[in-house]
Amino acid sequence: MSEHHTSVPALLTVVGLGPGDAALCTPQALAALEAAELLVGYTRYIGLIPDELRARKRVMSTGMRGEMQRCQHAIQAALEGTPTAVVSSGDAGVYGMAGLVLELLEEQGLLDRVPVEIVPGVPALAAAAALLGAPLMHDFAVISLSDLLTPWEVIERRLEHAAAGDFVIVLYNPRSTHRDWQLGRALERIAACTGPTRPAGLVRQAYRPDQAVMVSTLGEMPWEQADMLSIVVVGNSQTRIAGGRLLTPRGYMDKYRVGESSQRR
Amino acid sequence: MSEHHTSVPALLTVVGLGPGDAALCTPQALAALEAAELLVGYTRYIGLIPDELRARKRVMSTGMRGEMQRCQHAIQAALEGTPTAVVSSGDAGVYGMAGLVLELLEEQGLLDRVPVEIVPGVPALAAAAALLGAPLMHDFAVISLSDLLTPWEVIERRLEHAAAGDFVIVLYNPRSTHRDWQLGRALERIAACTGPTRPAGLVRQAYRPDQAVMVSTLGEMPWEQADMLSIVVVGNSQTRIAGGRLLTPRGYMDKYRVGESSQRR
Repeated sequence: MSEHHTSVPALLTVVGLGPGDAALCTPQALAALEAAELLVGYTRYIGLIPDELRARKRVMSTGMRGEMQRCQHAIQAALEGTPTAVVSSGDAGVYGMAGLVLELLEEQGLLDRVPVEIVPGVPALAAAAALLGAPLMHDFAVISLSDLLTPWEVIERRLEHAAAGDFVIVLYNPRSTHRDWQLGRALERIAACTGPTRPAGLVRQAYRPDQAVMVSTLGEMPWEQADMLSIVVVGNSQTRIAGGRLLTPRGYMDKYRVGESSQRR
Repeated sequence: MSEHHTSVPALLTVVGLGPGDAALCTPQALAALEAAELLVGYTRYIGLIPDELRARKRVMSTGMRGEMQRCQHAIQAALEGTPTAVVSSGDAGVYGMAGLVLELLEEQGLLDRVPVEIVPGVPALAAAAALLGAPLMHDFAVISLSDLLTPWEVIERRLEHAAAGDFVIVLYNPRSTHRDWQLGRALERIAACTGPTRPAGLVRQAYRPDQAVMVSTLGEMPWEQADMLSIVVVGNSQTRIAGGRLLTPRGYMDKYRVGESSQRR
């Protein structure tokens, strides 16, 4: 990279592209990509950017686990005056790159020098919920099963609290080639509290060509079909299956039935 | 409403408009509004729809607590053959109208007759997180403090489990004119577990003209400024304030420092 130590730092944006379909990428995210000269991201996410736009930009992409290298590259470019966008799928603020960018800037004493803007997107949890029905009408807990960066004991403790608190539970990163036992263990932990008949949903590749949406129960879902691009949703004690969809009632029906009849009196 | 009992039911969409700024409304949401002839929603949310589009549609809007009436009107219209969109701000699937629409259809035995599509949007939690920095880089619990439809004991139990599980905590509906003590009680419950120095954020009217973004601690935040259009975020044990933003580290820095040096050996 060239050396422009005296140049004015340029804007660094961290952009959530949404679940994958361009129709779910916001105008603000597209505008942030347009305003950038350099786009930085995991190869698969760079592929979500419209070809025509990407063709007009410089691109720096790497494979999985290249997060530090990519974010550092983006920071250096912005510092040297190149408007730069770091892209995530879903929302950049939910297990995305927003945090690592801020951490690296902080470590290097650059938080005041490099202007950063985080552009929110449609997170994977919202995409999965829409396809499953209406599971997130009540309080929910979001837990990543990736123990690459988090001790498994911490994850397990959170699963137990989420189940004991009767939260709807959303699981990110349920399984990958190298992490094949975590989902089974997590579901056991949850089922120990909820029993095996609790309604659950599994969404693979939401709003992408190979999308799959499954609604079943903890005990009967074909969990072996979960992969790294899946979201798992486990209902709370009120969640039911209605017309093949997951439905967690909010309480309107009971509440306003009563309200209506009182008003009539 | 006219009677067309023999007509073919039309598509009923439940659409999340995002936090408010049109730049954060997805093309798919706009397309769903375009495809509808009738737009149904809370008056304030109908106001988020671009004037030009709204002017070409029939609109049915009511004030707060008219949810049942609005959704029933939308169902009836779709049943009689009018393509109809029920609009929510944020994401229709997070404490939105998706659930009530499905509940009403189920109750009336119409789940198989009226085709329903839920269009996800940028939820308020993602909008608030982006403005606060990067608080949701790790597992989080989302809890509504509205006890209109949920007993307060259930809410309090969830707050305690969320704090004990070291989740980042996102609070929806923290306060309204008629619900003035719940936020204080909730924060006391959380602080009993975390202490008063836990970093926290308060976002009012995210991406709307009167937006306010505050980062402080549980003990020092001016909580009296929270209102019905606010989102509260309370960090986990790792969350810190960096350059005035909330930052919950994911663990990359520690992990890959180690990883890098091992690879060099």
